[in-house]
Amino acid sequence: MKSDSKPSEPNRAAFGARTDLALEAREMRGGGAIDGVEVSEEEFADGAVKVTWVEIVDENGAKALGKPEGNYVTLESAAMKENDVEAHEEIARILSRQLARLHDLDGEAAVLIVGLGNWNVTPDALGPKVVSKVLVTRHIREYLPENLAGRVRAVSAVAPGVMGLTGIETQEIVKGIVERIRPDMVIAVDALAARKTSRINATIQMSDTSVNPGAGVGNKRAKLDAQSLGVPVVAIGVPTVVDAATLVNDTMERMLGQMLESVPKGADFYEMLQNLAEEDRYSLITEILDPYAGNMFVTPKEVDAVIDRLSNIIANALNIALHPGIGPDDVNRYLNL
Amino acid sequence: MKSDSKPSEPNRAAFGARTDLALEAREMRGGGAIDGVEVSEEEFADGAVKVTWVEIVDENGAKALGKPEGNYVTLESAAMKENDVEAHEEIARILSRQLARLHDLDGEAAVLIVGLGNWNVTPDALGPKVVSKVLVTRHIREYLPENLAGRVRAVSAVAPGVMGLTGIETQEIVKGIVERIRPDMVIAVDALAARKTSRINATIQMSDTSVNPGAGVGNKRAKLDAQSLGVPVVAIGVPTVVDAATLVNDTMERMLGQMLESVPKGADFYEMLQNLAEEDRYSLITEILDPYAGNMFVTPKEVDAVIDRLSNIIANALNIALHPGIGPDDVNRYLNL
Amino acid sequence: MKSDSKPSEPNRAAFGARTDLALEAREMRGGGAIDGVEVSEEEFADGAVKVTWVEIVDENGAKALGKPEGNYVTLESAAMKENDVEAHEEIARILSRQLARLHDLDGEAAVLIVGLGNWNVTPDALGPKVVSKVLVTRHIREYLPENLAGRVRAVSAVAPGVMGLTGIETQEIVKGIVERIRPDMVIAVDALAARKTSRINATIQMSDTSVNPGAGVGNKRAKLDAQSLGVPVVAIGVPTVVDAATLVNDTMERMLGQMLESVPKGADFYEMLQNLAEEDRYSLITEILDPYAGNMFVTPKEVDAVIDRLSNIIANALNIALHPGIGPDDVNRYLNL
Amino acid sequence: MKSDSKPSEPNRAAFGARTDLALEAREMRGGGAIDGVEVSEEEFADGAVKVTWVEIVDENGAKALGKPEGNYVTLESAAMKENDVEAHEEIARILSRQLARLHDLDGEAAVLIVGLGNWNVTPDALGPKVVSKVLVTRHIREYLPENLAGRVRAVSAVAPGVMGLTGIETQEIVKGIVERIRPDMVIAVDALAARKTSRINATIQMSDTSVNPGAGVGNKRAKLDAQSLGVPVVAIGVPTVVDAATLVNDTMERMLGQMLESVPKGADFYEMLQNLAEEDRYSLITEILDPYAGNMFVTPKEVDAVIDRLSNIIANALNIALHPGIGPDDVNRYLNL
Repeated sequence: MKSDSKPSEPNRAAFGARTDLALEAREMRGGGAIDGVEVSEEEFADGAVKVTWVEIVDENGAKALGKPEGNYVTLESAAMKENDVEAHEEIARILSRQLARLHDLDGEAAVLIVGLGNWNVTPDALGPKVVSKVLVTRHIREYLPENLAGRVRAVSAVAPGVMGLTGIETQEIVKGIVERIRPDMVIAVDALAARKTSRINATIQMSDTSVNPGAGVGNKRAKLDAQSLGVPVVAIGVPTVVDAATLVNDTMERMLGQMLESVPKGADFYEMLQNLAEEDRYSLITEILDPYAGNMFVTPKEVDAVIDRLSNIIANALNIALHPGIGPDDVNRYLNL
Repeated sequence: MKSDSKPSEPNRAAFGARTDLALEAREMRGGGAIDGVEVSEEEFADGAVKVTWVEIVDENGAKALGKPEGNYVTLESAAMKENDVEAHEEIARILSRQLARLHDLDGEAAVLIVGLGNWNVTPDALGPKVVSKVLVTRHIREYLPENLAGRVRAVSAVAPGVMGLTGIETQEIVKGIVERIRPDMVIAVDALAARKTSRINATIQMSDTSVNPGAGVGNKRAKLDAQSLGVPVVAIGVPTVVDAATLVNDTMERMLGQMLESVPKGADFYEMLQNLAEEDRYSLITEILDPYAGNMFVTPKEVDAVIDRLSNIIANALNIALHPGIGPDDVNRYLNL
Repeated sequence: MKSDSKPSEPNRAAFGARTDLALEAREMRGGGAIDGVEVSEEEFADGAVKVTWVEIVDENGAKALGKPEGNYVTLESAAMKENDVEAHEEIARILSRQLARLHDLDGEAAVLIVGLGNWNVTPDALGPKVVSKVLVTRHIREYLPENLAGRVRAVSAVAPGVMGLTGIETQEIVKGIVERIRPDMVIAVDALAARKTSRINATIQMSDTSVNPGAGVGNKRAKLDAQSLGVPVVAIGVPTVVDAATLVNDTMERMLGQMLESVPKGADFYEMLQNLAEEDRYSLITEILDPYAGNMFVTPKEVDAVIDRLSNIIANALNIALHPGIGPDDVNRYLNL
Repeated sequence: MKSDSKPSEPNRAAFGARTDLALEAREMRGGGAIDGVEVSEEEFADGAVKVTWVEIVDENGAKALGKPEGNYVTLESAAMKENDVEAHEEIARILSRQLARLHDLDGEAAVLIVGLGNWNVTPDALGPKVVSKVLVTRHIREYLPENLAGRVRAVSAVAPGVMGLTGIETQEIVKGIVERIRPDMVIAVDALAARKTSRINATIQMSDTSVNPGAGVGNKRAKLDAQSLGVPVVAIGVPTVVDAATLVNDTMERMLGQMLESVPKGADFYEMLQNLAEEDRYSLITEILDPYAGNMFVTPKEVDAVIDRLSNIIANALNIALHPGIGPDDVNRYLNL
């Protein structure tokens, strides 16, 4: 999972702290206009799907949101977690159109899809699950009939695993593969951490900047980006967990806020709490959450089924976006090659 | 999972609130002597395994701990979550001896093992996993050689599923089966909720009272006990999750406590917080945790692997306790029947 | 899985003998007209789905096909194994209409769905997977708004497990549950064995007669039927495996047949082979397949994914047939209750 | 999985042809002395574990067995498939000693463990499962206390996936990683195909020659060996499936042999069958097994549980062989880093 944690923060929760969503980073700043950040919103499917574009245009915006400059597109829809096949197909179509807007997909460009995360940890298995469901064609183009071969782009997909299991920086593995097969671009899919439980498994973020594969031992999380890989990188992520310390922190703040309204005499105490630097308050809570809590995350009960559905949505969106020329029948024909 | 929630608490977290451990219920009362509660502790394996007996001897004790009268034996060992086969075998042996102390296992008594919980939800799959690993013999005794048949008790095992999946009160299903096969006792295995994250997957509780299969829709959770089933019931459980609201509540309290020491001026505010009835504070937090949080739980990252190991420990303990006359070789011979 | 094996055949392959499909039983008799058996065929979805009704009308037919009198409806479509969501929805609709034809589903009748098989053995997990996906309503009707409650039938679902895991005859468990909750009918879903590998995971059979839960230890496989349960039983099954001995037997016969055409001098030998009673030849092969082979089955490589898809098709068909009044949105609303 | 199939054999079963075991290749040649092949046998654990060394010393041996020159060590023990923890630990110890005999493991040499196969296909998931269980240390050595760091070798592990899922030759992926992290040797773990069902999941083969990752689309299966990777390669494999056509072929031959003894008049026919070149007979059977059979394999019912146990045995053997200086306690300490 992605994380902005600095090496100086050893006891960050394993699933990455606070939020990986530009959307929430903005909310944390009050949600109003921010210098260097441009925001636009759209609704689809009669308002069932909300799309927000956050563009960080300069240094100021990057500093304000703690994320690199670039575009961050967020799809939000509660239907994602529900067992509603038609809604999921609609979301996949919307997602594929937004992907094409985010990054021009020249029909010939070869794409490597990288599924980050750990397939043995349900909420972290999103990337590997997508990899197991996308249509890969790089190896079969030569077998295709003339009329199809032209319409099929070379797509490959790998799930490199996490450093805790491989002992290798994920970046090193991806670099090694990119250097050998030389794709024109990389699309990295990962599970993320969010701040609001309502967004868990109900939000998809795409960005054209970079990914920090997370959950490694220590804090070595080398970026996957155009600079490190030498090809453009698009990141697709879904928040599947909330960091336990974040949950406590936010809930407490909101609770004390509510209590104050009724019992103003706590005002000075509340102020004091407010004045505690966000940083300090966060690490104080992390210390209080006993040793094991650093390793705990908050996730919904039905996570196994939901991760399956989400990986279908993203895999379908990628198939539509990357193989416009071919339908499901063709797909089945290849897959059975 | 077990839960003491009353029907008047609709938005209790799906995995049951606060704690299912008598041990923690006692800690919540300060941990000192409680009228009607007798406690004794022992250590095994050079202190690696701690066993605590909590006996609720009367009305007062039951009211104080919010649990029915009876014995609650707790094994605690951090080794449970670790990948340490020898330690797990040792723990299984200790567990089997405690089980024999808790309930006299007459060599002839037929036992039905009931694995409660949902095999599709990792932290709730403990019961069904144990069922898939225990040695069942009820159906094969007639096939056994003379010299073995005498030494093998009739053991059967079922995983009835959860009401959300079956549409049937778990108690109804178990009753129906008990009425047909008439075992001499029932051993119910279930995943529990605890209060301290350090106890998650590191604690096994056995009791001779009852189980409330949890996580049902609404609050219909009919007890499994001697009265409802007509045979003695022993409950074995492992806390695999912490209810999100509980985590927030406890952490906040401890945090404010610490802050007070340094910043006494918050005293009156803190008092106020303290005076907020436990009940009210809990529901206030549950409301604040947005709609979906009721459905969220806190669990460790490596839960899938840990639940596997825990189900091995418990299944082995049951095999040792219920089939003292037979060794692993015999076991394999039957299983291959 | 279903099996017609008699107790006198101890070394039948664990996954049941030759075929559970009335369709194939008929083919084994030459496929022509059989006294006491009536057959009709239909095609749907432009021939993509073939539906065959085999009705065994009397004693003679029952003896000829080795199956009880009654109706056997078979849907065949290669699309079942493919990853083609639209085709699966179409198949689910066709299946639901055939189910309604097979057994009148009075809008009020309470239904118990029984998922037979072992959720730890992929090709045998069909039944339990369907149970985990059907819409159960028995427990939530009282929570539903007036306008819905009337339209929602009481559906419950259980996966009793297999005798090898429970130590209990599956019939005993189901009887116990039926006696307590008294449904108006039982729908049993099970994985089957077929004779032709081309039919594996590409065929769904429904019948209004009975099911023999299979793969038990020894040969105790008590029937689930109207007589044993006291309510009508509809069986839905999919062949997911071919018994290894059957595969060998059929292939050998076809091979020798082909060889004969070119090398007539083998004629008398071939005759001899033909004259070997089917029974004897089968057990000869089973003996030759060494000890473990009785425990082996033949299954496709991608069985895990295919069983998932098949369980979706059947669960959707059941949801459509049993809850005509409600749409997917309603469904999601209940499931989130 | 490994396969010796030549591109000229398109319809070889997906799980590779006849046998990957040098042991069986030798049996197929009658089992007697073969020019260029040296064989020695040993027994351990009172005969419970049989170890066979097959050394192919020259061209002749290589041609005779259809495998490259080198050493092939085979451990055979029925206990592998049984649920017998102690036996598995013993087997792991024996395996680790044989591994050290097969390839000198200089205490400093950095090792990359490659888990071949598809984690979504149970019998093919052995390699990825081993990877998820071995102790990887490459990334944590710098965090270790002085006294340990010296004793811990740099071990890393990857599961590259199969070409059908990645679209990339497995060899390309492994090469890319090897070039970046430059290990001193590669240990590749893979599931294999055997000829005898009795050997399925009861045999472990190690060799110091090469691996052909199998089950790819078409027949592109580039070798992993010292030449292609630039570092020594040790292959560890377990036969988890029997190719369906092989099962038919072998069974038929044995059956006709038996029939002949009683009914000599078939002699000339049998001869004819014998004279049919092995090759031709195999493809004839493959054609007869209808289109889908190429995609079918024969595997035991309890494969899911058995693959888990086998991956434990191999992971433990690797941990013992690669980290002689450290015990399970240390291990747990690192893994919790």
